[in-house]
Amino acid sequence: MSATLETLETPAAIIDVARMQRNIQRMQARMDTLGVRLRPHVKTSKCLPVIQAQIAAGASGVTVSTLKEAEYCFANGITNVLYAVAMAPGKLPQALALIHQGYRLGMITDSVAGAQAIVAFGQQHDESFEVWIEIDSDSHRSGLKVNDPALLQVAQELCAGSMQLVGVMTHAGSSYELDNLQALQSMAEQERATCVAAAQAIRAVGLPCPQVSVGSTPTALSALSLEGVTEVRAGVYVFLDLVMHNIGVCQPEDLALSVLTTVIGHQAEKGWLLTDSGWMAMSRDRGTQKQRRDFAYGQVCTVEGDWIEGALLSGANQEHGIITFEPEQGMDLLTRFPIGSRLRILPNHACATGAQFPHYHACDIDGGVHTWSRLHGW
Amino acid sequence: MSATLETLETPAAIIDVARMQRNIQRMQARMDTLGVRLRPHVKTSKCLPVIQAQIAAGASGVTVSTLKEAEYCFANGITNVLYAVAMAPGKLPQALALIHQGYRLGMITDSVAGAQAIVAFGQQHDESFEVWIEIDSDSHRSGLKVNDPALLQVAQELCAGSMQLVGVMTHAGSSYELDNLQALQSMAEQERATCVAAAQAIRAVGLPCPQVSVGSTPTALSALSLEGVTEVRAGVYVFLDLVMHNIGVCQPEDLALSVLTTVIGHQAEKGWLLTDSGWMAMSRDRGTQKQRRDFAYGQVCTVEGDWIEGALLSGANQEHGIITFEPEQGMDLLTRFPIGSRLRILPNHACATGAQFPHYHACDIDGGVHTWSRLHGW
Repeated sequence: MSATLETLETPAAIIDVARMQRNIQRMQARMDTLGVRLRPHVKTSKCLPVIQAQIAAGASGVTVSTLKEAEYCFANGITNVLYAVAMAPGKLPQALALIHQGYRLGMITDSVAGAQAIVAFGQQHDESFEVWIEIDSDSHRSGLKVNDPALLQVAQELCAGSMQLVGVMTHAGSSYELDNLQALQSMAEQERATCVAAAQAIRAVGLPCPQVSVGSTPTALSALSLEGVTEVRAGVYVFLDLVMHNIGVCQPEDLALSVLTTVIGHQAEKGWLLTDSGWMAMSRDRGTQKQRRDFAYGQVCTVEGDWIEGALLSGANQEHGIITFEPEQGMDLLTRFPIGSRLRILPNHACATGAQFPHYHACDIDGGVHTWSRLHGW
Repeated sequence: MSATLETLETPAAIIDVARMQRNIQRMQARMDTLGVRLRPHVKTSKCLPVIQAQIAAGASGVTVSTLKEAEYCFANGITNVLYAVAMAPGKLPQALALIHQGYRLGMITDSVAGAQAIVAFGQQHDESFEVWIEIDSDSHRSGLKVNDPALLQVAQELCAGSMQLVGVMTHAGSSYELDNLQALQSMAEQERATCVAAAQAIRAVGLPCPQVSVGSTPTALSALSLEGVTEVRAGVYVFLDLVMHNIGVCQPEDLALSVLTTVIGHQAEKGWLLTDSGWMAMSRDRGTQKQRRDFAYGQVCTVEGDWIEGALLSGANQEHGIITFEPEQGMDLLTRFPIGSRLRILPNHACATGAQFPHYHACDIDGGVHTWSRLHGW
């Protein structure tokens, strides 16, 4: 494999397929054990072979963050897509066009106004949309609180308007701020209990709410029980990254995405290597900045993927990266890492780094390298 | 124009063409007055109509940050390209292939090893490459110090190896850390004087060094004299952004790039608007974080482009933005910004935000909107 990693144009986004498959199996096995379906969030990879590997391992449908992802999945034979961003009225025609092609697209809302817009448009076009109500389980972003009177009002609006109220869904995004198992288990339980309570509140007034969907990678990998939940959504588990490593839900050897880079120069006095992995390759994501270990723009590894302890991509301009070494080991940088030598950088956030590339290079365990394209834009 | 901004799919990257043209004219007029050529850095836009507008206004050639940009420019009739990232040996075959197609491509190096690799490859393929030596004028990244003995050694290696030593070039990237005119003028003078001194040192030993290239948007817009300089490179001046606003080289009404977004929800108790402009649209660039005014993920404007004072895109997840208002004005968010209403967000860093989009929507002064594609990847 190294031979090929020695010849690819850099910077390049490298997927370690064996690691990816292990990550997929681990999450699927966990969900199977907990008795829930897994609906992977494809915003992480936006890449068909990755999504197909998730489906092949047992996933039931997918989650998307844009309608373009939905269209891409449908066009490639993946049915049952949940668009997990609150539906804007202006995007309803695009959603309708997909449904008219025979595809099954779920949408979400978290407000009376949003529900009314969906009902009005659905009725106008004689379409009964599949709608989920978004629940706020941790105050971090969007969704309705369980005790908000609007929750039942939204459910009633949808049912009275002849939409299909499929269920409730939530995402405990604040799990990203945690870094110990007990807190993660507690957050997973909060996410579960809150979403189940919302479903029960809807059922208690005689309305249907068959599905209960929760999830984030940290909570999905920590939950002790998912009683009352029917499906879990998670995305970054497929690649994992330094943020997830800091949270504590994976080991260094689980990280499946890295950026292959070339050394283009040195500032020997400062102990710097200059590389062609700037922020255009890594993204500007500094997700580990506030975590227990700050990896700057990424952890430096050998081209074979072994961590070089203390070597970080400390700085990033558009197409220039700066690697520093801590502690300085008195080594001769020019000899150990001459111009033209190659390294791999593990990213803070796989979703953000992947998005910088038109395609991945997927490295099989047998050394084969495949080009896997990914979606860009909306 | 507002009518069209009301119908575009969101998020969308909007170029205000009148502002862009004004920015182009301003920089070109400045360079004309200072008696130097302007070689715009196209890494900012990576977009042909933008580059063509720069050329039409009087630019002489372009600067690129990747060989893909060089290829794109050549294929579209733009000659004379300088690839301004130190040439990695592995990229030489790609450069040679472009030169063999008849294109004029300059490359840079800042080390003896780099120069030797260029010479070896050039001689092997009977090609005399146009090479510039990169000078470090502010210790911020790459380049050779004027007093580094390697400077003359590199010049000698190139000339002895029958390469064309075109000149010296530098980029005072630390100008981005400044925010007052006097410091900017001083940095511009440091950039100029250092690069001119490097050229003189080379000429003093009897080697050719006809060209002296300097530049960054902050120094280009601040320099009082460019004596001895032959050309200036600058990129972000074409769009400008909040970082440049904080540095003090432009006014709010100069910012030509913004992200059109839709309100998708509210957290009324918190005074939050939820939008579809997450970091996938804005990028993760937080360039104003350490500046005198932190704009979080961007300054919120009306769809017409008027700043809403105190309204910031405070948070960004992948496809969700969170807008907050300071001071809270006791307004009814749901009435003033209902679901489906539109806003525009000015970005911290135009280069990073533009890179998130496959195309721009260019809004003419007469209200016409054109789709301008841009490059992605390497």
